[in-house]
This record gives sequence, C-alpha cells and structure tokens, in this order.
Amino acid sequence: MQTKRLNLVDTAWLNVDTPNAPMQVGGLLTFQIPEDAPADFCQRLVDAWRGHSVAERPWNQRLRGGRWRNVAPEWELLDAIDIEYHFRHSALPAPGGELELGALTSRLHSHPLDLTRPPWECHIIEGLAGNRFALYLKVHHSLIDGVAGMRLLARALSTSVDEHDRPPFWAIPPKKSSRRSSPEAQRPGLYRAVSQLVGEATEQVTSLSGFARILRDMLRTARSGTNGMGLPFAAPSSVLNGRINAPRRYATQLYSLSEFKALAASAGVTINDLLLTVCGTALRRYLDEIGALPDRDLTAGIPVSVRPADGEEEDAAGNAITFIIANLATTEGDTAVRLKRIAESTRAAKHSLEKLSGAAITQYTVALMAPYILSLVSGMAGRTRPVFNVTVSNLPGPREDLYVEGARMEAFFPTSLVTHGQALNITIHGYADTLGFGFIGCRDSLPSLQHIAVYAGEAVEELRALYGKGDTGGPRRRKAHATPAGKDNGRKTAAKRRTTPARSRGQSRTDT
Amino acid sequence: MQTKRLNLVDTAWLNVDTPNAPMQVGGLLTFQIPEDAPADFCQRLVDAWRGHSVAERPWNQRLRGGRWRNVAPEWELLDAIDIEYHFRHSALPAPGGELELGALTSRLHSHPLDLTRPPWECHIIEGLAGNRFALYLKVHHSLIDGVAGMRLLARALSTSVDEHDRPPFWAIPPKKSSRRSSPEAQRPGLYRAVSQLVGEATEQVTSLSGFARILRDMLRTARSGTNGMGLPFAAPSSVLNGRINAPRRYATQLYSLSEFKALAASAGVTINDLLLTVCGTALRRYLDEIGALPDRDLTAGIPVSVRPADGEEEDAAGNAITFIIANLATTEGDTAVRLKRIAESTRAAKHSLEKLSGAAITQYTVALMAPYILSLVSGMAGRTRPVFNVTVSNLPGPREDLYVEGARMEAFFPTSLVTHGQALNITIHGYADTLGFGFIGCRDSLPSLQHIAVYAGEAVEELRALYGKGDTGGPRRRKAHATPAGKDNGRKTAAKRRTTPARSRGQSRTDT
Repeated sequence: MQTKRLNLVDTAWLNVDTPNAPMQVGGLLTFQIPEDAPADFCQRLVDAWRGHSVAERPWNQRLRGGRWRNVAPEWELLDAIDIEYHFRHSALPAPGGELELGALTSRLHSHPLDLTRPPWECHIIEGLAGNRFALYLKVHHSLIDGVAGMRLLARALSTSVDEHDRPPFWAIPPKKSSRRSSPEAQRPGLYRAVSQLVGEATEQVTSLSGFARILRDMLRTARSGTNGMGLPFAAPSSVLNGRINAPRRYATQLYSLSEFKALAASAGVTINDLLLTVCGTALRRYLDEIGALPDRDLTAGIPVSVRPADGEEEDAAGNAITFIIANLATTEGDTAVRLKRIAESTRAAKHSLEKLSGAAITQYTVALMAPYILSLVSGMAGRTRPVFNVTVSNLPGPREDLYVEGARMEAFFPTSLVTHGQALNITIHGYADTLGFGFIGCRDSLPSLQHIAVYAGEAVEELRALYGKGDTGGPRRRKAHATPAGKDNGRKTAAKRRTTPARSRGQSRTDT
Repeated sequence: MQTKRLNLVDTAWLNVDTPNAPMQVGGLLTFQIPEDAPADFCQRLVDAWRGHSVAERPWNQRLRGGRWRNVAPEWELLDAIDIEYHFRHSALPAPGGELELGALTSRLHSHPLDLTRPPWECHIIEGLAGNRFALYLKVHHSLIDGVAGMRLLARALSTSVDEHDRPPFWAIPPKKSSRRSSPEAQRPGLYRAVSQLVGEATEQVTSLSGFARILRDMLRTARSGTNGMGLPFAAPSSVLNGRINAPRRYATQLYSLSEFKALAASAGVTINDLLLTVCGTALRRYLDEIGALPDRDLTAGIPVSVRPADGEEEDAAGNAITFIIANLATTEGDTAVRLKRIAESTRAAKHSLEKLSGAAITQYTVALMAPYILSLVSGMAGRTRPVFNVTVSNLPGPREDLYVEGARMEAFFPTSLVTHGQALNITIHGYADTLGFGFIGCRDSLPSLQHIAVYAGEAVEELRALYGKGDTGGPRRRKAHATPAGKDNGRKTAAKRRTTPARSRGQSRTDT
C-alpha cells in the first residue's frame, strides 16, 4: 500500500474540522442537455461514469488510521474505490427550478464527508428545469482546495460539443506540469493562499503546537514591521462572525461578465469594485431586514495577486498572493456613493501594497491572516473580534465553452468553506462569459440567507440603472437564480390556484 | 421556556450516540397516488404540510445546552420550529424504482441528525415509479422509539380514502391515554424493551457510572438465579458483530401476511419461525458469498411478549417483554431442515420462559441483555463476543388500510438502529395484509448488503415451493423490492440498448 504524508497545513485543516464546521469545499455546475439527446441522458452519463471504478490521485487518497489518532496523518493510495459511494445519482422534485437546486445543494453541503474513505462526493442531479442537469462536487480541503478541484474537474470536460466518452474527472491521471504553470494558480481562493503562505513558512515544523507557535512568532514580527501600514482590524462584530452550526444554506446568482465589464468601465471602477458593491448593497439590505446591521461599515477580506515593488516586470509567476480589506460601506444608504467609497478603499489598499517588497508583502499577509488562523486552530474562532466580516473571492475560470457528452456547461457556482467566525462566504467564479455567484452560510446564523442572493440581484438592477447604456445586454441566460416565493408572482399565482389548504402560504421553498 | 428532564435511559441512548453509530430510527412508507390526482399531488401535500409550523410534543423538543455538556440533559419545548428544515421535499432519479428508493433511503439514514434542533427529519419523496410516492421519517432514539414514532405517524393517516386536509403528524397533540392501552405497546422493538426494562430498574440512579454499576449488579444477581436455564451465549463471532462506520445501506422486501400465514400453517410452524427461516436462509447464502459464513450456527435475538406462569389469565397488560435467542441454523444446507431446527429452537426457548414467574423473566432478560447494554455504554461493543448475531424483530402494525389525501399506504418498512456489535438489523413491520421487511446495516461491514434482501426473496420462493398449495397467491403487490441489476433481465436489456460506453456494465445501482 502506497502512502503519502500530509503536510502540516493540510493536517491543520483536518484538525480544525469539526461536525459543525467541516472543512469541505465544492462547486455546483449546470449543463444544458442537447435538444436531440435521449430522455435518459443523465442515466447514460451516470452509467458510463460508474464504469470507471479506478480513481487516480488525489481521488484515491484515504486517511490512514482515523482522523484523531495522529497529528501527522498519512494518505493511503487505494487501488480501487467504492465508486457507487462517491458518485451518486440524485434528482430534484418538480418544478426543478433554482429554488429546488439551492435547497438540495444546501443539504448536500451540510453533510460531513466520511473521513474513513477518500473524502469526496460527486452528484449528477437530474430534473433541473429547462432540459438541464447539474453536477455537484464536494471535497475535503485537506485533500484538495477548491481552485485545484475545479481545475481537475474541468479537465474532464471537453471544449468540443462533439466529443464523447471522455472519462470522468476521477479517472484522469494527474498532470506532470508544475502548479505555477496554470493561470488559476495566480489567483487562489482565501484558504488556498493561506495554506501556501503558512505552509511555506512552516515546512520544518512537525507538530500542531509548533505550528501555532510559529504563527504567533510570525505575527509578532510582522506587526512590528508593518506598524506604519495601519492594519485594518476595524471590522465591527456582526452576526456574520459568531460560532456556527452544521446546517448550511446555499443560493446562487448568474451574470454576464461582459455586462459587468461595461458597467465597471462606465462607472470608472474595476470589476472587483462592482462585485463588492453588489455584495455590500445586498448585505446592507439583508442585515437591516433581520435587524442586525452594524453601525460601523462591514469589511470584506479579498484574496488578490500583486506584483511586488522588487518583482521582475515580465515574471507573472513572481506575483505575491495576499489579501486586501475592502470597506463595504454598509452604513451608506446611496448605492452610487457606496460604489465610490468601496473603490476608494480597494485603491488605497492596493496602492499601499504596490510599494512593498515581496518580503514585506509576506509580513503584511501574515499579520493580517495569522489571528484568524490562530483562532481557528485554537478553537477560539467566532468568540473573538473578526479580522474582517466576510470573505469575497473572485476566481477566474475557463474562457472557452465546456461540454460533457455534448451538453454545454452553463455556469459554475462555487460552494466554499464556512468556519466559526466566518458564517458567510461569497465566492464568484468566472466561466466563458458568465460570473457565477455562490452564497454559502450557516443556516442558523443567517436565517433566510437566500435573501442575500435576491438582494444581490436587485443591486445589479440598480447598478444597471445607474451605469448601463441600454446596450450592455442582460445576463447571458438567467437573471436571478434565487427568488423567495414571495417575490415571484408566477409561483405565487400557481400556489393560489391550488386547493390544498395551508395555514401559512407564501413561505420560501428554498429554506430546506 | 418549558423544559423536561431526560430520563436516565434516554440519556444513555444519547451518550452511546457517536458519529459512526448515531442512535436514529425511522421508517419508509410508500403510497399509491389516486389515478385522478393532479400531477402536482406531492407538491400540494408538501405545501399543505409546510403550513403547519407549530409542532406538538415530542416533535418540538430540543436538547438544551448541547449533547456532551451534561450527563442529565433536558428537553426544551419550543414554541415554533424551523419546519422547512425538518420537513423536506426530495425526489428519485429515473426510473424511480425500489433500487433508487433504497439508495436514497440509505443515504438519508446515514446522515446524523442535528442535535441542536428537535432531532427528527421527514422527507416526502416524489418520482417513485407506478404513480407512487414515499415518506421517510428519521428520529433520534432519545426523543422517541421506533414503535411509538410509527404510532404517532399513523395518527396523521386516515382510515378513509375520502378524508382530506388532515394535519401532519407533528401538528397532532399527544394523546392523554396510557402507554399500555395500545396493542403495539405489547410487542415493542428490542431497544424499546431494553429501555423499559433497564429504565424501571434504574429510576433512582442519576449518573451514568451508577447506571453501569446497577447493570453489572443486576447481571450478577440474574446469572446466579438462572444457572439452570443455560443462557444462550453461544453466538459465533461474525462480520455482523464488529465495529461499524457511518454509511448505511438499506433494502426492503414486501410480502403478503395471509400468504405467510398459509405457508406457516402448511409447514406446522409459527409465522415468526417462517420469518426467521427467510432471514437465516438469506444470511447463509450472503455470508457464504462473501466468504464469511461461520462454522457454527448464527443466532438471532428476538423480542417477544410472554405470559408469566404467575400472570392473570385475562390480563393482557400483564405480559412480560423479553427476548428469546433463536438458532438460525446457518450451517444447515437444506431449507426444510433449517425451518425445522429454527422452529425447535424457538419452541424450546418459549417453553422455558412459560414456566417462569414474572420476576424470573425479568432476571433472565437482564442476564441476557445486560452484557450488550454494558458493552454499548462502555464503548466496548463490537470488540467482545456477541450475545447474539443479529436482531430480528417482527412488529404488528395497523390492520386497516390507511390513506393520506386519498393516497393509499402500500407498505411500511422499518429503518432501525445499527450499533457497534450489531452491524445488521432486520425488522419486519405489519400493515393491512402486508409484511414490510427493512434490512439496514453498515455499508462497510456488509458489502452489497442489498443481496441479503434479494436472497430473502429467493428464500420465500423456496418456501412457497415447499409449503405452498398453489392457492396462497403471491404477495399483494410487488414480490421483491431489492434486486441487483445483474438479477433483473429487464434492466440489463435496457442497459445494453444504451450507446454510452462503460468499462464495467451490470453493476448494482443500489450501492450508493
């Protein structure tokens, strides 16, 4: 039996994993089934993929000897896996809309992975309205991070509508090429960046207490070296930053990248500023609705890639990965002013960073992130002041249309990590001309979380009215993927026609 | 906030609950949708039931202060519950047969309940072939046992095809009548009987170590008083009796009670003997197939109700609940001989019991069950010699046809407890003229567990050939509910017609 030692950072992800905060990441992909496809398209796909019971790395890696028995666990590389356990066929109840898909994904992402097996699950979900189906993937962060997982998943998709019989992602051998060679490696998600950063600094440490000690030392050094930078530890306490429970809620939104580019150009800001304004506007309205809007501005932590002041001009691989803290201007009532204030805060943060050397950027990053990592490792997360209120990541994706058995991939929605102290995560994933928003959070901390997605949709409408030129076009396919029943007149009318009595009508059907 | 102290036995169930062996029980009910019902019958039912967000006891009871913080936890009685969390709408992928239903139920029963909420979940499952739907209920054993749960569930069903708008089970106030008044209370499942037995003996004990001590004392006393009875601690070690993992597999079978009555009469045995022969025959073949058939006979623990020698003739409530150990005669190759040996072993066990006084029966029961309970409480279960190899319970159910919104209930399949040391549970539940078999087990201990259900079906065929008179008729509706794909020519042919290639065809599709 071949084995492979987990590095310390992956071990750390494993050790902060708890039943209420499992360290699992994933993605939800939707596909348009070809018009001439047989009615059992999904069943055929499931049958074909089930035929591949030999999994390649990392999909065949299982933790050896249980999760708590060893602070330095190892992966076993299995010759065969129980493919019918890992790969599942699911379905949506009628009408099979985005509401039902969000409800099912919420449940699937709430269940912890079984750490006695290779820690991943994949579902083909049939019954999605509009002759579509979905693919949901869930992976433990110690096995692979979300960005790398998406990259491996994408390799199982084809750039040609005519290609058939491509093996599923778990049956494709790993590439030999280096991590740095892919463009995605330049713009990792928050957790991946933290892993790389802390991992590089702690390669020689072999115990978790040593890991915590080195973090504290780094934090002390980094703070003394960055006194002048005014580290932005000014996030207010909020419902987004407490302890969390196990159940999750998930909602999505899909927009057109080219429309967002045009809106950003018209407003004189970056696309990231526009995305942050969508999030800030939605959060302001949502928190106000539940009576929990802090009287100071919420802040967002955003992973960014910057070129150090001492970096080579042409060396893209020399970029440093760090975080900026943006002010979400949630105390501001006017969306145009909010956009302006957000853009100012990101510009100032990036401006400070650009003057720093590579080493100084690392110091800054550790100073920023170490308290959060420390609080996670020590079990204090969600009981202390937050470093920032919410993570907003914008990840680039494949530019080309992708297909599986001739079915075009419509969108990629990330389902990221939620931890104690970070009850909400908003990740946006690019693909072709789309931007797929995934809102994931703790169901108890954030009641009716799906309203945040709905208000994000309304924020986009507002930005269109402010900066649209009438020729930017709507989103490529669907405007809003998460709509509470009360907002949707069509559904409400349908409900009224029904004769079965109910004591309280018009409840949202995504709350499951 | 009203609170209610958990009794010691319910506390014990809570404390032996682990992620790999959650103490959850449930049931799977299937219903025939009326032919003239609208296409959205299930959606209307879900909408109507979702309107009931006020839950009655015990469905509104939540554990106070987390599960491990207190050895004497309390229930909080909530005024309102998050009904959209507890009551869910699910669907089966095509073709929506018993295979797909078994796969979904396996998954649903594998996920642990969230103990920060009232510990129950109910799913309406649409997409079941033959214009049917299913209802799956999962409850933590500390909240309610399976028998009582089924009784409460049945109260939400109607005996009339014409009754409509009956509230769901969680919205029906508890009855005032005593436990003893219902006939089901006379024939409880194993765990309920243990709870009652140990509960009565330990009412004054207030700590778990005291609980373990009293069990040990009872065991010592009981053994000294029953030396002559030859307690049947002769179960061989087997794959059925080790430590278990979290994932479950579930399979069902449905038979006609009147056919089983006729077969039993023809063979000169009881229905229980016939059921045990079906189980013994299936287990012999399954264990032989996986190369794990012990060279000594497997034994089954069966909860029974007996009239003590000193009991009143007409006082049904005076019956004592205890267990007999039946020999499953799994070393015997001939089914007719196996039936004879099983019937002899149950007759002898009951004969011994009938001569005992009520007090002696209690002594015997404690002597029999205390080692198992002790091993569970001490965490040693699955690491010691089993008391018996498998639990087989036969529970009576409602005799009348039951309906929900005009849809006739077709069958009730129990999904019982699996624990360390008891990796398989077979429970049979009566309803109208049906006997619903539920086979639930640990997916890892018992690979392709659904084969046990298939072999049970073949055992029934064999018994029909041996004892049927040609006029007993087949099962009321469906013969076998769990069929691996390789056994079913229709499905196999359908798979062959497909063009999507697969490396290995004919795999069972219930293995998820």
